[in-house]
Amino acid sequence: MGVAAPLAVSLGDPAGIGPELIAEAWARREAAALAPFFAVGGARLLREAARRRGLDVPTIAIADPAEARVAFAAGLPVLAGGDGDYRPGDPSREGAELALASLGEAARLTCEGAAGAIVTGPIAKARLAQVGFTQPGQTEFVADACGVAHEDAVMMLAGPSLRTVPLTVHLALADVPARLSRALIERRARIVAAALARDFGLPCPRLAIAGLNPHAGEDGRMGREEIDMIAPAIAALRAEGLAVSGPHPADAMFAAHERGRYDVALCMYHDQALIPIKTLDFDQGVNVTLGLPIVRTSPDHGTAFAIAGKRLASAGATIAAIRLAGECAIRRAAA
Amino acid sequence: MGVAAPLAVSLGDPAGIGPELIAEAWARREAAALAPFFAVGGARLLREAARRRGLDVPTIAIADPAEARVAFAAGLPVLAGGDGDYRPGDPSREGAELALASLGEAARLTCEGAAGAIVTGPIAKARLAQVGFTQPGQTEFVADACGVAHEDAVMMLAGPSLRTVPLTVHLALADVPARLSRALIERRARIVAAALARDFGLPCPRLAIAGLNPHAGEDGRMGREEIDMIAPAIAALRAEGLAVSGPHPADAMFAAHERGRYDVALCMYHDQALIPIKTLDFDQGVNVTLGLPIVRTSPDHGTAFAIAGKRLASAGATIAAIRLAGECAIRRAAA
Repeated sequence: MGVAAPLAVSLGDPAGIGPELIAEAWARREAAALAPFFAVGGARLLREAARRRGLDVPTIAIADPAEARVAFAAGLPVLAGGDGDYRPGDPSREGAELALASLGEAARLTCEGAAGAIVTGPIAKARLAQVGFTQPGQTEFVADACGVAHEDAVMMLAGPSLRTVPLTVHLALADVPARLSRALIERRARIVAAALARDFGLPCPRLAIAGLNPHAGEDGRMGREEIDMIAPAIAALRAEGLAVSGPHPADAMFAAHERGRYDVALCMYHDQALIPIKTLDFDQGVNVTLGLPIVRTSPDHGTAFAIAGKRLASAGATIAAIRLAGECAIRRAAA
Repeated sequence: MGVAAPLAVSLGDPAGIGPELIAEAWARREAAALAPFFAVGGARLLREAARRRGLDVPTIAIADPAEARVAFAAGLPVLAGGDGDYRPGDPSREGAELALASLGEAARLTCEGAAGAIVTGPIAKARLAQVGFTQPGQTEFVADACGVAHEDAVMMLAGPSLRTVPLTVHLALADVPARLSRALIERRARIVAAALARDFGLPCPRLAIAGLNPHAGEDGRMGREEIDMIAPAIAALRAEGLAVSGPHPADAMFAAHERGRYDVALCMYHDQALIPIKTLDFDQGVNVTLGLPIVRTSPDHGTAFAIAGKRLASAGATIAAIRLAGECAIRRAAA
């Protein structure tokens, strides 16, 4: 059985809550049973962020990711990289440049195999776009780094109670029906099934596919997408041997007694997937990118500039993202 | 301070789970602190439903709703009405006729003031439509009985953790954006605010209005409904003195730490309102109709023919519906 390489954690925007949560994750590494990880750049700002949070977090400079394994017990390993003074809640151009450099280096190291997984800290996309970030989000950035088409990098939200995949993400609700297709559902479902088998220890994952309309359309009385598109996709996937059920009425499928009947819910639009996750487990949602040659996770929250440096942000999602990345990386290393 | 008249409970489809849950609600009347209620018809089938559920529930025939107050301590009061043998899980035309007669009589008694509220049991709409039920649902049936326009009978879902109002209900998701309007939002918000003040003891209720699009549109980048319609409606309502906030990103607004900031969430479509309620409190959701001259509640589930008579159905929502009806009726009687 192989041993996974240490995990690379990108800083996120240094004026946001990313750095303080990395520091806290290291401080709680034993209780949370986290695999060794290292931050990419930002040693001084990480120490400062820890101090503001009331934590004593020594950093240990490393020149190679492999050094993180030993260093991790004594301090937060930090790979040489950019640094500086950044005021919490006051984002700057220099901060955006640092965030982008940290992200790019973490992705490169992971694609090369020097890091076992990449965990990305929260960025402000609009600010990074001003310094050369051309993708719509970090998911697409990492996909580009791996040479995977954007449409095959599939976002999954994973919480303690539930996993969901939104089949469409950042588009107006009015544009959702036209964007969906039988081919899209089938392609993403296959990617999800393969990823859960490889990275999550679920050799035959159970996929529950939501309907688009209320009550899953009630036999066509409220929309025909279930009949024309979703049910045929499910039939085709089942014919391939996948454990796929649906279309399920979206309002009922996330109830406690239903959640145990599947491993992941495939949802038709952003809020259908995000409402149940955030309603149940707001502070612990992890964003996982499926379909990549590498493991990538991220805490499912933003930079939260308004509360940065105030000891208010929960480290739950960052810790969960690092833990999940470590679990997936170990499964890949053992395969 | 007035005393509310006993509550009228309609049977619902006798082949469904309605009757057994009425019987169990009576059996648990003391622990659940339920106000006196009576069933409209079905004495024999109620006793039979109780027996199948393993409960000993005597019925007491009453000729007038007022008799229910005294009778309630000793047995389940049942107003003279239709009855018969109905097999659980095997709906029939006769059963649909009984359900419709019970519903009509309960609505009439409540509109006349003989009953303090109506609690409606679950029906199969398609089956009732075959025996003369012309409305899309019981909400509209009761609105007609009261002489209120259908569009002013507003559905609210109430659970232990959350109240939500779907501003559109049973239509295809693709048709939602066109059905919404600033006028609709304002009109429904006023009805909701007035009803929470009158029936729920919230003199200045806090209304949180959801966005339609992901992240509430992110300043128009993903849809313009928030800018063109929802925000202006909120501004107008606030100018009237109502405590209205939003548009809120729908994925975040139902998280535990957000739910305490408002008394009711106004949602743009069915699943936006129903997913959080059912995800949190599947077995305890109550459907309340606001904007009527009478109090009407209902357990938020269907006939569940598949589990009728099998001791599987939870009585939680029926008990919650009766309790809430009693609380609202007492507030009206005291006003």
